[in-house]
Amino acid sequence: MPALDVAGEFETIERLLKPLAHPEWARGLTDDVAVLPSRPGHDLILTKDAMVEGVHFLPDDPLDTVARKLLRVNLSDLAAKGAEPFGYLLSCFWSERCGWPEREAFAAGLAEDQARFGVALLGGDTVRTPGPASFCLTALGWAPTGAAVSRAGAQVGDLVFVTGAIGDGLLGLRAARGELSLDEVRIAALVDHYRTPTPRLDFAPAIREFATASVDVSDGLAADLGHIARASGVGIALNLNVLPLSAAAQAWFDDRVDAQLSLEDLAGGGDDYEIAFTAHPRHEDALRREAEKRLVRLTRVGEVTPGGGLTAIHDGQPVEMARRGWTHG
Amino acid sequence: MPALDVAGEFETIERLLKPLAHPEWARGLTDDVAVLPSRPGHDLILTKDAMVEGVHFLPDDPLDTVARKLLRVNLSDLAAKGAEPFGYLLSCFWSERCGWPEREAFAAGLAEDQARFGVALLGGDTVRTPGPASFCLTALGWAPTGAAVSRAGAQVGDLVFVTGAIGDGLLGLRAARGELSLDEVRIAALVDHYRTPTPRLDFAPAIREFATASVDVSDGLAADLGHIARASGVGIALNLNVLPLSAAAQAWFDDRVDAQLSLEDLAGGGDDYEIAFTAHPRHEDALRREAEKRLVRLTRVGEVTPGGGLTAIHDGQPVEMARRGWTHG
Repeated sequence: MPALDVAGEFETIERLLKPLAHPEWARGLTDDVAVLPSRPGHDLILTKDAMVEGVHFLPDDPLDTVARKLLRVNLSDLAAKGAEPFGYLLSCFWSERCGWPEREAFAAGLAEDQARFGVALLGGDTVRTPGPASFCLTALGWAPTGAAVSRAGAQVGDLVFVTGAIGDGLLGLRAARGELSLDEVRIAALVDHYRTPTPRLDFAPAIREFATASVDVSDGLAADLGHIARASGVGIALNLNVLPLSAAAQAWFDDRVDAQLSLEDLAGGGDDYEIAFTAHPRHEDALRREAEKRLVRLTRVGEVTPGGGLTAIHDGQPVEMARRGWTHG
Repeated sequence: MPALDVAGEFETIERLLKPLAHPEWARGLTDDVAVLPSRPGHDLILTKDAMVEGVHFLPDDPLDTVARKLLRVNLSDLAAKGAEPFGYLLSCFWSERCGWPEREAFAAGLAEDQARFGVALLGGDTVRTPGPASFCLTALGWAPTGAAVSRAGAQVGDLVFVTGAIGDGLLGLRAARGELSLDEVRIAALVDHYRTPTPRLDFAPAIREFATASVDVSDGLAADLGHIARASGVGIALNLNVLPLSAAAQAWFDDRVDAQLSLEDLAGGGDDYEIAFTAHPRHEDALRREAEKRLVRLTRVGEVTPGGGLTAIHDGQPVEMARRGWTHG
């Protein structure tokens, strides 16, 4: 496939992308393909996500954070399955906005996060688009054979956990849009979470070992737990009262009048990129030890029940949650 | 990553994409990831190409052929390396134009070609874009360990071959744009080639066995042989007089006044998706037998020489070819 982009495809690949390439498997980004040796005893885990300016990121988001978010949301999918990422393929659809400095920023963002997360570029292509800047990334990881966790294994009686804090994705988007009135430090923390969420890769081994079902929180905690419930053929009761909040989200929450509605908001918002999972109660202690060892906040937010779908609970009562999962478009 | 598209993401995945999913490894397209067992003794070969409406395909190209071309150009990359494809991940950026009938057509095109080429959908996502419809595909294939052919192995004294015919990509684009005056049958054949080129998967085993370097003809035969010459640190002499033409291209050529310029045009045009490769002269007979067995036209178009870069030859004389590789943007 021709993959030229007159303004600077050659330069972009040669100067910006080649330094990111995997030293062996990417073939210097000059061979149309990447070639990976098989890894006996392991499964290859693949995921692919796209981002469009004005839909998945804001037109004034800096391109280095756009690149980092693109990589991170894909790594988050791998982490939630218990996989260890090693590489990615990338397609850039550069818009008019994407001159050389923007492309440099994009590559610099990738370089920073590659080093942080131990992955390297394997291939892809770069084209121009008359539309909004868009990007598409395929991330690859390994898991020991058969160990990748699915959404479908939750059992009645399992407990439901979530890593980190819930709601910073939603509040971060509002903060980036200038819609929140909070002090500068908290606004900055929320915007930072929105632009560069942290994939919970350090918790992936624990997920692999203990989770019966898992998902990364991208559509919203309530929606994503609903996915597990449906796939597993069980019910899930989510206790809104124990939703883990960041300091910034707590400050926002403390100013709300309607606590229940606010918690529904946070559980309904997307873009958190934490891992929500189910596990047998006998593993709770081990999970807590793992979390402590890895400095990951871990909260028990519910339990798996008979019946179907998600039930949110507030002050001991089931509440009707309107479907609030992120919708792009 | 949220991947919703309000108009019909759920329906699109449920009704159009699930029927395309790999029965085991795609996890029903409901689990954010695909999980592939490792295949000892084999390397995994990966490629990723994108297409943008108005850049890589015409706004009036039917979406079933757009889908088929997207799959085919990626499979062509695998074929040129001697790999056998088994699956793909797909990202769809649907534009306003992409209503349900267009999405159905897109999926129907994929279904047809999946069956033809023995591949299945592994995952991906579907989003909406305010820009032009765009698509991005990651194709996966296997090759026996170490057998994937690179661009870098051409040796001085090797012969240069190309499968099929050259120039139909360029003429097909002109035909689709209504710029060619030829009879209807030939126009239809050229448009058909432009919209649904044939990846030379049936010749991949021969490439694996005999080629020292290979590439699929996407940028243009001259440009792509230039890639091999550069990667291998050799020269390549391309004999324009023996360029293999289809019946339709021959008819077009017969009407030209300047034979040399016309051949330069065809060798400079892109989108042919044939395989250009180098091989030791002692394998020429075996290659011809393979080609005959598989009903693939095979033409010896040049040789590998000392020196660097590509030299086009016409009537025994070197000619200056302006760089004519496809440029998108």
